[in-house]
Amino acid sequence: MIVVLAGGIGAARFLRGLLAVTSDEVAVVGNTGDDITLHGLRVCPDLDTVTYTLGGGVHEEQGWGRADETFRVAGELAAYGEPVWFRLGDRDLGTHLFRRRLLDDGVPLSEVTRRIAARWRLPVTLLPMTDDPVETRVVADGREMHFQEYWVGLHASVPVERVWLHGAAAARPAPGVLEAIGAADLILLPPSNPVVSIGTILSVPGIRDAVLASGARKVGVSPIIGGAPVRGMADRMLAAVGVECTAAAVYEHYGFLDTWLVDPVDADPRFVAVPLWMTDLEATAAIAKAALA
Amino acid sequence: MIVVLAGGIGAARFLRGLLAVTSDEVAVVGNTGDDITLHGLRVCPDLDTVTYTLGGGVHEEQGWGRADETFRVAGELAAYGEPVWFRLGDRDLGTHLFRRRLLDDGVPLSEVTRRIAARWRLPVTLLPMTDDPVETRVVADGREMHFQEYWVGLHASVPVERVWLHGAAAARPAPGVLEAIGAADLILLPPSNPVVSIGTILSVPGIRDAVLASGARKVGVSPIIGGAPVRGMADRMLAAVGVECTAAAVYEHYGFLDTWLVDPVDADPRFVAVPLWMTDLEATAAIAKAALA
Repeated sequence: MIVVLAGGIGAARFLRGLLAVTSDEVAVVGNTGDDITLHGLRVCPDLDTVTYTLGGGVHEEQGWGRADETFRVAGELAAYGEPVWFRLGDRDLGTHLFRRRLLDDGVPLSEVTRRIAARWRLPVTLLPMTDDPVETRVVADGREMHFQEYWVGLHASVPVERVWLHGAAAARPAPGVLEAIGAADLILLPPSNPVVSIGTILSVPGIRDAVLASGARKVGVSPIIGGAPVRGMADRMLAAVGVECTAAAVYEHYGFLDTWLVDPVDADPRFVAVPLWMTDLEATAAIAKAALA
Repeated sequence: MIVVLAGGIGAARFLRGLLAVTSDEVAVVGNTGDDITLHGLRVCPDLDTVTYTLGGGVHEEQGWGRADETFRVAGELAAYGEPVWFRLGDRDLGTHLFRRRLLDDGVPLSEVTRRIAARWRLPVTLLPMTDDPVETRVVADGREMHFQEYWVGLHASVPVERVWLHGAAAARPAPGVLEAIGAADLILLPPSNPVVSIGTILSVPGIRDAVLASGARKVGVSPIIGGAPVRGMADRMLAAVGVECTAAAVYEHYGFLDTWLVDPVDADPRFVAVPLWMTDLEATAAIAKAALA
């Protein structure tokens, strides 16, 4: 059994490579800190990116959202004067409406996620890190805001002074999360954001302890190549938590990894060097194969 | 001031004719008995049909819903196994999402309706009959169901044994409704369904009394021509309340009209005969003109 702690695009692409090289059971613990309520709907960007990618519905070039997407509903919401800085596509909205209806009926997010995964016939078990309401918040430009407001709204254009998972103290791991970690032979950290993706998952009380207590081999893939994030705003987030934006610093920040995969440009005797650019499925499968080795 | 008690398509088309022949202020009291919660959204078919028709966004041939509509979200909901017997279009969904967000924020339906009307620059004041939760229910085929389940789900294919406005006893007229009726010089009943549209509005405690107490002239347009409804299932609904499906029987059922417009095929010395087929704006304006005369 392999457990993967997953953010969005980087994790989803890595998972595609992983599934190409293993027939082992894979459980994915997904970040829900990025989740946000928009137009009364609960949007779970990371869970949905993993779902759409592994389910074959993702917008390939973009890496998130649905292929062949339209924005007719968003156009109407804009006409009604609703804020549409986070523009939801029509097909994507189908997922959020389905999820909202189930949540309204009292179905926990983990069960909602299971039902969404069933439609997409996911080849993994996808578990949200928690069923409890949490959200990643940042202080940027002297103002506190939801992570999505910083990332999608402000395009991460200003430095972050602080970042934390609001609601973490009262959150419990979702059903199945601790069990999966306990049963894992291998725990993989894909090249997701070390702060607002994997860091967030590890900050749900009980999850870090379970990872540390697990006898599984712990292998991570660096999201930093040559001192810069492969994608996203990991540099700004690392700065906010006082970690240098280097592959080595992120390795030390995690502090529990048996194996750390870095790109050849970051070669270091302590690490395994393998090309980390996930340019296509073949390259990604090679990274996954190195992680399994 | 003219007050119109309105259902959906018939009322919306009549209003278009009315606005072509009067510059008087028009307040429309809309039926909310047909409203239904679908996918967690509050759908108000009659209010929206009036809005889209007078706002220039309606699907002209169909008479309801949006012009140039698509059903991408509905396709996704179906893929998730959600019941889609009441298929909502993408553009239409923008309205329902906007309304739901406001209702969630505690904004009453009348204020939500005002904000929707503002976007569409409606040339009338559109008031829901009530802000309180009510719904038209029927017993058909030995089973109790929401009116929409009978009409849209079963296509009105079985006889109705009973019809009533659930929640009516506790409902109060929405802000502005009694004031508009009290200030009216003319109260118009367009060719809407006498049972599940206008009958429903009149069954909100206080509205019928206000109409009866009003000094306004009360003029109705028959929705029955030659013993059959112009559109819809008025015949089945009239049968359920023991009223014959004729123009004369509907007139007597209302019991408070000063003037009753019937089609020439239903000519009767008590009524004003004028062609009642609303085939185009000109024909509809002629009906409205007769109602004003």
